[in-house]
Amino acid sequence: MRLCSLSLVGLVPLALGSVWPIPVVFQTGNSTTSAPSPQINPGYTTSSILTGAVTRYGKIISIERFTGPSDYKTTISGTQGTLTGLSISVASSDETLALETDESYVLDVPQNGQAKLQAKTVYGALRGLETFSQLLETFSGKRVVRNTPIHIEDKPVLPHRGISLDTSRNFYPVKDIERTLDAMSYNKLNVLHWHIVDAQSWPVESITNPDLAKNGAYSPSMMYSYADVQELIKYARDRGIRIIPEFDIPGHTYIVGNTYPEIMSCLNKQPNWDHFAAEPPSGQLNIAKPKATDFAIEVINEYGRLFTDSVFHLGGDEVNRNCWSEDPDVIRYLAAHPGEDVESLLVSFYTKVHDAVHKLKKTAMSWEETLFHSKYVPPKDTIIQTWIDENSIPNTVAKGYRSVASPASSYYLDCGHGAWLPNFDGNSWCDPFKTWMHIYNFDPFANITNPAQRKLVIGAEVALWSEQSDSTVLDARLWPRASAMAETAWSGKTDAKGHKRTTAEVADRMHNQRFRMVGRGIGAEPMQPLWCARNPGACNLP
Amino acid sequence: MRLCSLSLVGLVPLALGSVWPIPVVFQTGNSTTSAPSPQINPGYTTSSILTGAVTRYGKIISIERFTGPSDYKTTISGTQGTLTGLSISVASSDETLALETDESYVLDVPQNGQAKLQAKTVYGALRGLETFSQLLETFSGKRVVRNTPIHIEDKPVLPHRGISLDTSRNFYPVKDIERTLDAMSYNKLNVLHWHIVDAQSWPVESITNPDLAKNGAYSPSMMYSYADVQELIKYARDRGIRIIPEFDIPGHTYIVGNTYPEIMSCLNKQPNWDHFAAEPPSGQLNIAKPKATDFAIEVINEYGRLFTDSVFHLGGDEVNRNCWSEDPDVIRYLAAHPGEDVESLLVSFYTKVHDAVHKLKKTAMSWEETLFHSKYVPPKDTIIQTWIDENSIPNTVAKGYRSVASPASSYYLDCGHGAWLPNFDGNSWCDPFKTWMHIYNFDPFANITNPAQRKLVIGAEVALWSEQSDSTVLDARLWPRASAMAETAWSGKTDAKGHKRTTAEVADRMHNQRFRMVGRGIGAEPMQPLWCARNPGACNLP
Repeated sequence: MRLCSLSLVGLVPLALGSVWPIPVVFQTGNSTTSAPSPQINPGYTTSSILTGAVTRYGKIISIERFTGPSDYKTTISGTQGTLTGLSISVASSDETLALETDESYVLDVPQNGQAKLQAKTVYGALRGLETFSQLLETFSGKRVVRNTPIHIEDKPVLPHRGISLDTSRNFYPVKDIERTLDAMSYNKLNVLHWHIVDAQSWPVESITNPDLAKNGAYSPSMMYSYADVQELIKYARDRGIRIIPEFDIPGHTYIVGNTYPEIMSCLNKQPNWDHFAAEPPSGQLNIAKPKATDFAIEVINEYGRLFTDSVFHLGGDEVNRNCWSEDPDVIRYLAAHPGEDVESLLVSFYTKVHDAVHKLKKTAMSWEETLFHSKYVPPKDTIIQTWIDENSIPNTVAKGYRSVASPASSYYLDCGHGAWLPNFDGNSWCDPFKTWMHIYNFDPFANITNPAQRKLVIGAEVALWSEQSDSTVLDARLWPRASAMAETAWSGKTDAKGHKRTTAEVADRMHNQRFRMVGRGIGAEPMQPLWCARNPGACNLP
Repeated sequence: MRLCSLSLVGLVPLALGSVWPIPVVFQTGNSTTSAPSPQINPGYTTSSILTGAVTRYGKIISIERFTGPSDYKTTISGTQGTLTGLSISVASSDETLALETDESYVLDVPQNGQAKLQAKTVYGALRGLETFSQLLETFSGKRVVRNTPIHIEDKPVLPHRGISLDTSRNFYPVKDIERTLDAMSYNKLNVLHWHIVDAQSWPVESITNPDLAKNGAYSPSMMYSYADVQELIKYARDRGIRIIPEFDIPGHTYIVGNTYPEIMSCLNKQPNWDHFAAEPPSGQLNIAKPKATDFAIEVINEYGRLFTDSVFHLGGDEVNRNCWSEDPDVIRYLAAHPGEDVESLLVSFYTKVHDAVHKLKKTAMSWEETLFHSKYVPPKDTIIQTWIDENSIPNTVAKGYRSVASPASSYYLDCGHGAWLPNFDGNSWCDPFKTWMHIYNFDPFANITNPAQRKLVIGAEVALWSEQSDSTVLDARLWPRASAMAETAWSGKTDAKGHKRTTAEVADRMHNQRFRMVGRGIGAEPMQPLWCARNPGACNLP
């Protein structure tokens, strides 16, 4: 048996590179520990979340025999001990899953015997279980943990790490969303921002207004029932993932007009839809009509109860003023109410819908236009999601609001796929394609030095808008690019020594993560020729 | 029963739009014919190709209940007859599959009774069977053929309509290639240009040089055996598809160096590979060494026999002169042979390998550099595949050579996916992404007016280079964009009246083709939100 020397490894050597995202503290030794069939012991627990996770990871470990592509020739000459299992202890029985949830964990894998995972919450334990599963590697049929003993102390930089998924332009079956939640858990992502409804379809059951889905879902089979939503919320929670629903108002609501045309403005204007909306079909709630606001509040009340998360996303993006200023009803209303205008109507609308969210004891989230492109002053607890400009992040926190970063220029996964209007042979509006390197290089904290303001940067989300996506391409559009964001959001841009990680340094580990996901049934797209994955550095630009 | 009026339909109305590519002559009536279970009768035939196709389409017809997205509300009020079956007659028993093969067919679907398919060859019958299957549509559970009686006379504009697939950068299992051949048959494509080998791997068994695959395939399971190749050739032929193999020489051959480093130049130069190759790893056959030419001829002799098609693709693209001019062996050779230089060595190499192809009584195909960027004058029967410049097509035929059009600017399906060198946060070299509209708008005959020269434009191929593709994304990268090329290559750019078809006009039919493929198990990506597919014209740019 060799003596183990613990050392703080700032830049993890390539040979260690199987954990994604990289833990904050990752101390390793020089031994190789055999790990033919480590058993996971949850200890005494009444937590179904924990026992569910133990069953899940037990199954992964029983099946998975992971070898990173650059290790295709690696052999293990001898081992210095055997890993018999993993014991888990969770300090708190509080299973609240929210922005404030503690996801930290400490993981020790000795050279011999039992590994130990300690966490404050069950959600921290989930993160540690994922890390544990990623430490297991197989070489010539022999499963081991390399570089034992290992000591890991880990916690995320950003408490909100998400994917925004649009299920309105095109529909995704429940099993697609479940698989996405699985993949998110493999990357320690913790928010599915469900952009469930948009102009094109209303794919979620409504009990308050049943015709919304009846007239608005693409078909009865392309609709999420209450039971589906509840199952997905549980499925997500079991993986430590919050589901934040977005019901985008007052724009992006054409589909409401299939049921309530009387509360809508500029419904499907043709052919000059571009005067009224960012994309067809045009249509916005008619903010001059009290019934439109009532409807919005009904939606908030219904879905604010169905969705259990404490954050409710109100949308508010791409509101088009022409839609209202040219609407006969709005024109009539304004003529009869001197002193009011479209902007004041919008402020009034926002005030009422934000109040409705507060009345449910929830926090509102909204796209940046509500803050920057309207006269409304959102409540200070509103979470502002930025997308138009990378500078919107510093601008948001400078105003004292919390920011979730989703800049189209770096985090929009649909970009670069060309235009989709059939008579337009041009590029996508947010061209070019965002590569994993480009996503990895983006820093949500850029240009923010004030510590108090930096604390207001609470999250990052990549977004998949589904004009050109559906079930056929979901996995490849999301993965492994969302993994690139996941590491920067969990581990930060720099290591413990302040060194900013480069894409060249992390490429080998990123390949591992991509191939691991593929092995787990996620159709993540390849980053490179396999030859490059096998020969780290050999495909770098000189 | 209504009287039928036959009329030549130049621009097929949207309601007729289920056949892709659109037939050259497509006459329709006003009746709707019930088609609950038409039986296909191949007549007396000894052709296993025909009976196989009848079984295949019989199965498709028994399962498929196709409704185009824009017909989601269409109902059929009454039918004017019943289609009982389809009888087939094939004039010739010659089953040679080559550039010259006649693929024409005539298809008549009456208002009542038996449809009739006539073709000169069994391959024409295959095309007609595909058309027949696409005429069947289902509305509220009722299957019909609309607009009967139908009279179709059809044949392709280009005899060579292909997909080039690179299986070297990343590997595709046999079943992926089979599924691709299925999808090709749904689009009447007839050439799989199998770019089987490149620098990164040698994924095909060799009996002459067994170590090539042993040392060059990514793994034993990522290799096509002789049996695999033979099975694929048969699978393709059964669908009327030729497989043209490409063994790219003298460049793009690094992987040969894993077995025969002594016949190679500039093997995996690092880090400045870009001085020696278009992408890593660098490496070319050393044309100063007779053994390298001998090796190339061995490859031609071996695979020219394994692959049965009369065309053999020799590659010849992206040859790098530095690789040789800085090679010590080449320098020594040239010093000892005054009057010779790298260009004369290359001419000598090309002469020998083209002779080898001729000795097998085959026709050579090569990338345009052989013609335009070397001093070699290829034999006049050589088929030149252009990619660098769209003007290379007129330039090729002006020199009297036959041209297959694969311009990167329009037909490279891998473009627009960003760079893939992990330390380079930039765009792909052939950015942007080629949309289906862009592909549809390209005309292989552009700028060629001379009729004799137009006849030399024999084909079009879209190409999928696999740096960023593998099994996870194959279908979505190819489809439905390859369908866009397929229609222009089969039907031409204009209808019978000389009207140039626009992407706006064909979008509805293209959606149908995409959804039909998805129903048949091809993961073709969506073109638009389903709302747009259901509302033709509503998502056009004003």
